[in-house]
Amino acid sequence: MHMQIGDDVSPKIATRTRDSFAKQGLMAHLGAEMTEVRNGLVSIRLPFRPELTQQHGYFHAGGTSAIADSAGGYAAFTLFPEESSVLTVEFKVNLINPAQGDYLEAIGRVIKHGRTLTICKLDVWGVTGEVRKHVATGMQTLICIQGPTG
Amino acid sequence: MHMQIGDDVSPKIATRTRDSFAKQGLMAHLGAEMTEVRNGLVSIRLPFRPELTQQHGYFHAGGTSAIADSAGGYAAFTLFPEESSVLTVEFKVNLINPAQGDYLEAIGRVIKHGRTLTICKLDVWGVTGEVRKHVATGMQTLICIQGPTG
Amino acid sequence: MHMQIGDDVSPKIATRTRDSFAKQGLMAHLGAEMTEVRNGLVSIRLPFRPELTQQHGYFHAGGTSAIADSAGGYAAFTLFPEESSVLTVEFKVNLINPAQGDYLEAIGRVIKHGRTLTICKLDVWGVTGEVRKHVATGMQTLICIQGPTG
Amino acid sequence: MHMQIGDDVSPKIATRTRDSFAKQGLMAHLGAEMTEVRNGLVSIRLPFRPELTQQHGYFHAGGTSAIADSAGGYAAFTLFPEESSVLTVEFKVNLINPAQGDYLEAIGRVIKHGRTLTICKLDVWGVTGEVRKHVATGMQTLICIQGPTG
Repeated sequence: MHMQIGDDVSPKIATRTRDSFAKQGLMAHLGAEMTEVRNGLVSIRLPFRPELTQQHGYFHAGGTSAIADSAGGYAAFTLFPEESSVLTVEFKVNLINPAQGDYLEAIGRVIKHGRTLTICKLDVWGVTGEVRKHVATGMQTLICIQGPTG
Repeated sequence: MHMQIGDDVSPKIATRTRDSFAKQGLMAHLGAEMTEVRNGLVSIRLPFRPELTQQHGYFHAGGTSAIADSAGGYAAFTLFPEESSVLTVEFKVNLINPAQGDYLEAIGRVIKHGRTLTICKLDVWGVTGEVRKHVATGMQTLICIQGPTG
Repeated sequence: MHMQIGDDVSPKIATRTRDSFAKQGLMAHLGAEMTEVRNGLVSIRLPFRPELTQQHGYFHAGGTSAIADSAGGYAAFTLFPEESSVLTVEFKVNLINPAQGDYLEAIGRVIKHGRTLTICKLDVWGVTGEVRKHVATGMQTLICIQGPTG
Repeated sequence: MHMQIGDDVSPKIATRTRDSFAKQGLMAHLGAEMTEVRNGLVSIRLPFRPELTQQHGYFHAGGTSAIADSAGGYAAFTLFPEESSVLTVEFKVNLINPAQGDYLEAIGRVIKHGRTLTICKLDVWGVTGEVRKHVATGMQTLICIQGPTG
């Protein structure tokens, strides 16, 4: 049986992923929450606050990038073996619409999983009521490090 | 006379740049400060706080990216005409060493300035006492929008 | 009526696109052909030849990138006004599997079309008989220049 | 004694690098030649030919990218152990000026060398007589694979 991207994960993996996310001081400081943990797919939500803005009152690209990076990193991490940790090697993001809304939602999705490197697609949506607007799209390369878990 | 990258800027441009930076809610929330405003070159410093970490206690790549994005954006902005504003089109960053230190310093430097698009090099250093370690390097594409200043 | 990405294009736009492609000396030199021209979506095929390899006998990333860049550029160009031309501002590509097969197929697809800038997703597949393997994925920023057509 | 980027390499490493380059069918097909092999730094030259153009008669970004990718890949390879090979994980390039001149010169330079991953800076110059113009700048992530040499 081969798991697909988006399948349910075991409680053990869900817990491991959420526990690691909870250790990211920046996510708490921004007010971000992990809203979905699936196999190779993680969503993070960031509600609007004035503390997150750039000079025109939109979400700053740094906040957009922060949740995109964590979403992709944890999407990869759901596929990693026990006793390993995840590091971002590089990422890139195109900011395609003004980042505004009640909240941003970042979705990280694994598109290639290897023993050493994993590649994720990153997408961020600005959500206002029922309307979702695509605000950023990117890609990310992650490395699996054997050893300290997290 | 043609100004070079790194030359002094006029008080007017320095003020315009610092005023816009001061409107970025995220920079204040992270604790970042603009330490240098030169012609096509801006530095931003981010002192370490537990509120900025990822799961292993290093600076989260989101914070690294946030100050790199602002540094590059304002480096470009120093070259823009009055009554214009700057938006990031895209950026990419390679995380080449663990982001740690007393503070991070991001330097944005214009490498190509055009009427519509400006390209910046982004570098981030982790500084501990006298030791500076290169933690991230990237590139950024910015667009000059005529109209609302900022 | 609003056209969607992937819709048929007018004969005029198809001709304009194919004529410009035919002027790219590199595409002919590599042996690439434009296989599909749709609204905001272009495919280019590159049959395998020893003249296209890297040191292990796979397609060189330069060939992969060349057809990806042209596919995205012409996908954008299908949406551009008359008397305009297209230039690539930047692109990035992750090479996710060895680039091998009877031929490569690059697909450029517009994900955001603006008056000045257009953003494309780039994907390249290695095709062997009925089997298609995803070999590269990327993103591209293009600019619309008023004036000399092409 | 620690070797610096740009130092001379041993004849053995120079030969290994040039031998691998000579196996790249694409480089010969484009007419590219390796002009410099130093420690973590490789230059490749691509003389202008109509077979290398895009629709306006400049060098096609695919050619620019091809020599940039090879320059960075071999720059990394000079630092790799015996019995290993190099693969490009990803690269990104900003095209900052029209790619024209008697020839292009791509320079790949290692900015971070690790056991598994190496990061290079990529720069391409258009050279006309004594004039050198910066036409592209980028970054590249490479992986060292133990086993088949090349």
